[in-house]
Amino acid sequence: MARTTSLSGFTEWLPEERLVELHVLDTLREVFERHGFASIESRAVETIDTLLQKGEIDKEIYAVSRLQENEGSDARLALHFDLTVPFARYVVENAGHLDFPFRRYQIQKVWRGERPQDGRFREFTQADIDLVGDGALPFRSDVEIALVMAQALEALPIGDFMLRVNNRKLSEGFYRSIGLEDTTAVLRAIDKLEKIGAEKVSEELTSSGAATEGQARQALALAQIRATDTSFVGQVRGLLGDTEADELLEAGLAELEEVVAELNTRVPGRVTADLSIARGLDYYTGTVYETVLLGHESLGSVCSGGRYESLASKGKRTFPGVGLSIGVTRLISRILAEGGLSATRKVPSAVYVALRSEDDWGAAQDVADTLRRRGYNVEVALKAEKFGKQIRHADRRGIPYVWFTEDDGAHEVKDIRSGEQSSADPATWTPGAEDVLPRIVESATD
Amino acid sequence: MARTTSLSGFTEWLPEERLVELHVLDTLREVFERHGFASIESRAVETIDTLLQKGEIDKEIYAVSRLQENEGSDARLALHFDLTVPFARYVVENAGHLDFPFRRYQIQKVWRGERPQDGRFREFTQADIDLVGDGALPFRSDVEIALVMAQALEALPIGDFMLRVNNRKLSEGFYRSIGLEDTTAVLRAIDKLEKIGAEKVSEELTSSGAATEGQARQALALAQIRATDTSFVGQVRGLLGDTEADELLEAGLAELEEVVAELNTRVPGRVTADLSIARGLDYYTGTVYETVLLGHESLGSVCSGGRYESLASKGKRTFPGVGLSIGVTRLISRILAEGGLSATRKVPSAVYVALRSEDDWGAAQDVADTLRRRGYNVEVALKAEKFGKQIRHADRRGIPYVWFTEDDGAHEVKDIRSGEQSSADPATWTPGAEDVLPRIVESATD
Repeated sequence: MARTTSLSGFTEWLPEERLVELHVLDTLREVFERHGFASIESRAVETIDTLLQKGEIDKEIYAVSRLQENEGSDARLALHFDLTVPFARYVVENAGHLDFPFRRYQIQKVWRGERPQDGRFREFTQADIDLVGDGALPFRSDVEIALVMAQALEALPIGDFMLRVNNRKLSEGFYRSIGLEDTTAVLRAIDKLEKIGAEKVSEELTSSGAATEGQARQALALAQIRATDTSFVGQVRGLLGDTEADELLEAGLAELEEVVAELNTRVPGRVTADLSIARGLDYYTGTVYETVLLGHESLGSVCSGGRYESLASKGKRTFPGVGLSIGVTRLISRILAEGGLSATRKVPSAVYVALRSEDDWGAAQDVADTLRRRGYNVEVALKAEKFGKQIRHADRRGIPYVWFTEDDGAHEVKDIRSGEQSSADPATWTPGAEDVLPRIVESATD
Repeated sequence: MARTTSLSGFTEWLPEERLVELHVLDTLREVFERHGFASIESRAVETIDTLLQKGEIDKEIYAVSRLQENEGSDARLALHFDLTVPFARYVVENAGHLDFPFRRYQIQKVWRGERPQDGRFREFTQADIDLVGDGALPFRSDVEIALVMAQALEALPIGDFMLRVNNRKLSEGFYRSIGLEDTTAVLRAIDKLEKIGAEKVSEELTSSGAATEGQARQALALAQIRATDTSFVGQVRGLLGDTEADELLEAGLAELEEVVAELNTRVPGRVTADLSIARGLDYYTGTVYETVLLGHESLGSVCSGGRYESLASKGKRTFPGVGLSIGVTRLISRILAEGGLSATRKVPSAVYVALRSEDDWGAAQDVADTLRRRGYNVEVALKAEKFGKQIRHADRRGIPYVWFTEDDGAHEVKDIRSGEQSSADPATWTPGAEDVLPRIVESATD
């Protein structure tokens, strides 16, 4: 885990670490498919134009060009920095072949040329789910997407987590209600709350002329509201006092109330209405989500996203959507670094068939094939070394069983952990149920 | 399938095509793990130095650089063009953490800036297996790797295939035996046999002074030898006549004989000794493999590789290996283009829970969750549209069952294909075994 990598920001897992990653990826896929989400992959490169269209980009882009390229022969390309922009392009390009509403999941690497630091990578895996409509998308999609992701996170061995949810309509509607006009400037300032603190945010709001001191105080008070139930609605109304609520605020309150109520019913204890969440200047227009791992708050959000009224458009046709994205590499990196999880062995093999002599290889393969046909992962020794050496080679990698073929053709199998050895028939012998596949177990409690 | 892509050479699958790809990738993973191969992934980028170290590169490289890069601040990077060079680096970097002999599989995208044409892509997926030793690697690894890959290919729905195997020692040893000294020049010329024909190869050999006419004739005769059994040994000896066989030739004959004999025993009908196979100027030193899909010979080799005495080295320590690589994208592209295979539906969902009214969503989710807990993939309608419309939305995507909750709380399930509808209990109802998951079926025989 403390291995240095030869390229800063580019992590490569050892085989036993990769098993933890595979377990995470397999689990996510299973939950996503269980809810009817279809897999797609997009190409790793986009035109730079496509990436820049999405407005302000704070992600550093990796440009891609052929070494022996004729100047100007191709469109300028770059590696994608997320899976949302490529998905938007995919939807527009393939709209005629897709059925809406369209549920898709996408698990791929993305690249950002950022300064590498703890939990930040230049190449990392994201796991995204999105629900996209053609022209319209019912609001309950915002509930569904959060439910699916909460169930996915519950299925992962990552401990407790909390979804923190807000709604852009609520914030903007509140600002409007109290007479703030430049709601974008206010959102941008409030977004810095966690970083620079309330005093500086207030200063920024008043000195820029975006808000009076009273308005700044109210905007900051809104951002302080936290509730694990729908009581935030009353708190917001209390804050407004006699001021009439803008209809955008009413819409936002109703939406956030529905998300919080439904999540509390279906995945109790996993949601907090957190009215400070803004998700920067991204293209969200309604619900916004972040997720913290309890006890690992310093890691930042491990799963974020939101609703966008127009993920993509094609002429007058728009495709509204709502999505969430897990930063898989960051999650796994933390899991591994904390020593919390590890694989019970380094390789898929449950059985290591030893060689008695060099001539024994064919018979050993027969044994292995019989076991393989019965669904077990088996490898055969490459060389008839001393049994002790063969056993050590299996043991070092955590393979639980070593198989021996005796001179008289009888078979014996040894459980390396207990040392017990008994006669066995490859057509009927069965390993312990827990030994069939490598498992991911908690190696320490923290 | 005949969709145009917005970037030439970069293919993106529709959800139903992606299901075919997933089926192929899952099958490969299963077979590889069944034989004890461990998964790893390497980063997508290598330093350009690493890529160029491997000598002559006929693959066009995609360079990668940060858009806002300070000149010279980082090592120059490029996307990997295969998985062998990255694996060699990975082995050297992590040698202290790996156990040898090390069996690994690696399924990832690679990039080549080649001119796109039928069956050639600029971004494509490779599936590699390699077996690597520390200092030495028993020859039977060459047999094992071919057996695993033959079993993997047999598990894929791709029809008949043939592994074509040769051995560099055999060819070079033969050339030496007949007095040819510049064996590299001869190999290079013979490698063009299929492209330019025997006459031109002979001309090249004699005009360059590398061979006399008689030697050229013999070298060409060697390259004509094909045998689905070990009879090639006699043919090579016959070609030599009274000339004494070089010991390298003897080694090559013995190795190729073992590969062909073992494959014929364990995967009958899947191997041809083809003494024309040279695999270009790659780093192979012994066995070389290619694979053709019968009936799709124009596709070229879909699975190639070989033995390298030094895949990688670290000071005086060398890591010999043997490996095979499947060009997955090329394979899938052909499968899809020929209309041979398709998914039974476009989405994972086996059941579509319809909404009677907008208020029905919670109850519908309860039904869905009960079914999901029992292992079925289920989606719930987002809107209480007319039943006919909801059923069509399910049907269009091939979802076999629609679930209805009646006013009185009773449940009914409709098989869309037969139109049959019957009462059902989400806690006990079972879909047809063939309907649980989307399946890949032959949609046409060719």
